Amino acid sequence: MASIALKPINEIALQYGIAQQYLIPYGSSIAKIDPILINPDAAKGKLVLVSSITPTPLGEGKTVTTIGLSQGFNFIGKPCIACIRQPSLGPVFGVKGGAAGGGKAQVLPMEKLNLHLTGDIHAITAAHNLAAAALDARLYHEQRLGDQFTPQTGLPRLNIDINHILWKRVVDHNDRALRHITVGVGGGVNGVERADGYDITAASELMAILALSDDLKDMRQRISRIILAHDIHGAPITAEQLEVAGAMTVLMKDAIQPTLMQTSENTPVLIHAGPFANIAHGNSSVIADRIALQQADYVITEAGFGSDMGMEKFFNIKYRQSGIKPSCVVLVATLRSLKTNSGKFDIKPGQPLPPEIAESNVELLALGCQNLSWHIANAKRYGLPVIVAINRFPTDSAEELDYLRQYALSCGAEGVEISDAFSAGGAGTAKLAQAVMAACEKPSDVNLLYPDEVSLIEKVEALVNTYGAKQAILTKQATEQLSALEKAGFGHLPLCIAKTPLSISADPALKNVPKDFTVTISSFKVSAGAGFIRAYAGNIMTMPGLGTLPAYRHIDIDDAGNIVGLS
Amino acid sequence: MASIALKPINEIALQYGIAQQYLIPYGSSIAKIDPILINPDAAKGKLVLVSSITPTPLGEGKTVTTIGLSQGFNFIGKPCIACIRQPSLGPVFGVKGGAAGGGKAQVLPMEKLNLHLTGDIHAITAAHNLAAAALDARLYHEQRLGDQFTPQTGLPRLNIDINHILWKRVVDHNDRALRHITVGVGGGVNGVERADGYDITAASELMAILALSDDLKDMRQRISRIILAHDIHGAPITAEQLEVAGAMTVLMKDAIQPTLMQTSENTPVLIHAGPFANIAHGNSSVIADRIALQQADYVITEAGFGSDMGMEKFFNIKYRQSGIKPSCVVLVATLRSLKTNSGKFDIKPGQPLPPEIAESNVELLALGCQNLSWHIANAKRYGLPVIVAINRFPTDSAEELDYLRQYALSCGAEGVEISDAFSAGGAGTAKLAQAVMAACEKPSDVNLLYPDEVSLIEKVEALVNTYGAKQAILTKQATEQLSALEKAGFGHLPLCIAKTPLSISADPALKNVPKDFTVTISSFKVSAGAGFIRAYAGNIMTMPGLGTLPAYRHIDIDDAGNIVGLS
Repeated sequence: MASIALKPINEIALQYGIAQQYLIPYGSSIAKIDPILINPDAAKGKLVLVSSITPTPLGEGKTVTTIGLSQGFNFIGKPCIACIRQPSLGPVFGVKGGAAGGGKAQVLPMEKLNLHLTGDIHAITAAHNLAAAALDARLYHEQRLGDQFTPQTGLPRLNIDINHILWKRVVDHNDRALRHITVGVGGGVNGVERADGYDITAASELMAILALSDDLKDMRQRISRIILAHDIHGAPITAEQLEVAGAMTVLMKDAIQPTLMQTSENTPVLIHAGPFANIAHGNSSVIADRIALQQADYVITEAGFGSDMGMEKFFNIKYRQSGIKPSCVVLVATLRSLKTNSGKFDIKPGQPLPPEIAESNVELLALGCQNLSWHIANAKRYGLPVIVAINRFPTDSAEELDYLRQYALSCGAEGVEISDAFSAGGAGTAKLAQAVMAACEKPSDVNLLYPDEVSLIEKVEALVNTYGAKQAILTKQATEQLSALEKAGFGHLPLCIAKTPLSISADPALKNVPKDFTVTISSFKVSAGAGFIRAYAGNIMTMPGLGTLPAYRHIDIDDAGNIVGLS
Repeated sequence: MASIALKPINEIALQYGIAQQYLIPYGSSIAKIDPILINPDAAKGKLVLVSSITPTPLGEGKTVTTIGLSQGFNFIGKPCIACIRQPSLGPVFGVKGGAAGGGKAQVLPMEKLNLHLTGDIHAITAAHNLAAAALDARLYHEQRLGDQFTPQTGLPRLNIDINHILWKRVVDHNDRALRHITVGVGGGVNGVERADGYDITAASELMAILALSDDLKDMRQRISRIILAHDIHGAPITAEQLEVAGAMTVLMKDAIQPTLMQTSENTPVLIHAGPFANIAHGNSSVIADRIALQQADYVITEAGFGSDMGMEKFFNIKYRQSGIKPSCVVLVATLRSLKTNSGKFDIKPGQPLPPEIAESNVELLALGCQNLSWHIANAKRYGLPVIVAINRFPTDSAEELDYLRQYALSCGAEGVEISDAFSAGGAGTAKLAQAVMAACEKPSDVNLLYPDEVSLIEKVEALVNTYGAKQAILTKQATEQLSALEKAGFGHLPLCIAKTPLSISADPALKNVPKDFTVTISSFKVSAGAGFIRAYAGNIMTMPGLGTLPAYRHIDIDDAGNIVGLS
């Protein structure tokens, strides 16, 4: 990548009307932006939400298309900013493949994006683990001092229920040995022995809070509402009650500033927050969106996983909270991933592909297109025009591309365009950008799936109905939790369904467009700070593990001191 | 502090001949410096090593004196840079009191110094924990695949001994519940169940490595030598063998750049690394020293704890490895801490002082001065002139100050001066700076305590002799470890005695200048990457805990978004 000329970041900022005074440089090619520049009345841009068909191990190239599309807008002379999430170190050192896009559509400098960047994830780790340390310390001192705790400290007893601690610890690595741990082993001066565990940092509620906060004050208030544990009487214990919410906010004070970088064609990109699209809403930040919408005519943002995941959550959670309205949804698909979605193959990452996937096969493609059809309908349900972006591969046949184009239009897509972002950058997405621009001019209004005031069970039903499920089944535990959450005053919150991204249903084995299935919700949990109820439909992995041949083996410094092996 | 005008950091750099091209800005008042500017032949400055008498709960004001002295040199027109360690988050949120100095002698912006700064500690945490995750993952996969591990992966079996894993995990918080943990609880896909624990990040060997590395290449080689565990046959397993040393170095690539800040009088300060002065050598980095010695006439650096700790280790470890030679030792003392060192009182932090400490009492002072006498002799042992800096308090009587001055001179101090750094900044340390400058002109040559080639037991004896001990006693375990380390080829390394800083001996109960005592070494461990042998004389806490009324309770954001409660 040494051949690509990066522009000084303040030059790019200036081109987009961001004055020096709002920039906090981190070297010459990266800067944080002070959100103080946000003027609530100054939003002028159109937001484009990039989603996809059901993800497959082959990948749809959603990030490449997001970055490439922002370059395409610039190519046709339209000021455009991309807003994406910050990658975690876990996948960078675990499975080969960063989150910078690729080819002629990537975020640079790639090694900065994929490593520490401007420290936001580290700040979240620090803030999260401060609360965990504070909770265990309080547990220890209350147990140690017993009746003398309040007289000696002047603090009320919190009476933390050791079996009802909700706040785990976090680390930004794939570390399976930390999934289930015992802390305070041996007790005594080394704390209270109890079961605990680690999540990867992106799974912290603080990550969702960072992404959803309007400003520092709002972030402070959200953090104060976080429920860390319950007391022995079942009442929630918040970060505010532990008196740690202020310090947590202080640790995240710089993290609230989005980071400005550039693409391989010098298009500005804002990197901010990185919530998952299962246990959280899967999109970058409200603050980054607002800055971008104020400084550019078009803003491209990527929602995690398929349209049943990140896109749905963008509308029902992020739009609901922020009022930031997209003007168009782009659904990314590849011929290979559509064929894979047919359900005819069992494809595993790293194993050779069945030859049928690469060969021209309209019949197979037609089968997989049912999945696309579902996602087009799902996006249109929210009231927006849909453009299908075909992320083209060299082996794609003209016949297949033609079929796909006709099919998508027949399903109600507003347009279908090929993206050659990887091989041609902005020149390869200019037509896509034109189509998206035209779609953005269509009048649209977001239809949310449910109003705040309906019951949580009605929200669950509304959501699983969109999947095509016959019904939602709640376990006994889930039913009790639902009732407790409504009693505790959380019934007005939107739902965040934590399910597999690999099927429209909650069962990864059900491919393409599943029929005749049910969705079982095993538990409900509240993210009181982020402002949503997590409904668990299946086991969601929040701490990945390292494989036998992890990517870190090939990452090193060469003799000239350059980083090698990162991608 | 809002009234103090910070200069743009690039202006300060330029004044000291550091061109823009070597600066990596982090905002306008902080920049990293690219060590590429180091020219091995260009060192021109004199290094001043600030140490102290035996520390007491009252504090001697060593950091204030270090910062103030650098301001004093500037006050008398001499270009001077201070080199200090980066503070950990643990004490910032635990016990009130950051590490920025205070009054008119502090490093600004204080909240940047005390929080994330430029991310070096986070980078160490990430690199350290990557190795830990990698080790547990390898353990898991080798156990899971058994005989199939090598055929399936092409990698050799490491045969990690689950009972001989040396590499714990780290977090930059005071978190007692993590001292002893069990990881992999339940086994199966969640790893191998085993006993583990956390240290605070400053205790990581990577912290000492960062401080001692000559450059990126040297750091890469040091990391490759780190011993993570032993195999079931007792052979060491290094970071290189686990193929994680390159990735660890990549995570620390930016951390190798020292951070430039300024004092409240715009004197440049380099912040770099933060090793403890018990389990490590307790001084900031070789790279920061080299940059400072090249760009300034005088460089002031602070060694951790008393002269028996950080100063001794500066000579026998850091000077031995780097050849960086101080020209003068400054010993900081206060009347209060000398009186406390008399051993007549049992003073606890936060409790009211005995009135005798504040009252003029030459007899009491004279008793405590024996401690100063020992530290003067200890510093002179290494061949350098010693200046005593009296960090003055408003209650100090002229009679006492006079006594102390005469006493110190009679013990062989080259000079004695009052430091009014806290109340008067550089104007209050101008005389001290003059005295230090004169001392630096004295011819001096460093006498190391022992040559590389003597046996480890001779090194132990040489060191405990300086404490005044009758002899060193090795436990059976220590004797065996010593022999194993020499057999393994580590006999040439210098020693790092891990003992209490609260006594010249290894027993915190022995005050002032202990006599007739022995020092028991319970174990030896090698820091193969940092390049020293740790000799444990007593239990050393490497994971602090939070108290009942921790400082985080008062740290918050005010309505204007400013940080409050940090000090």
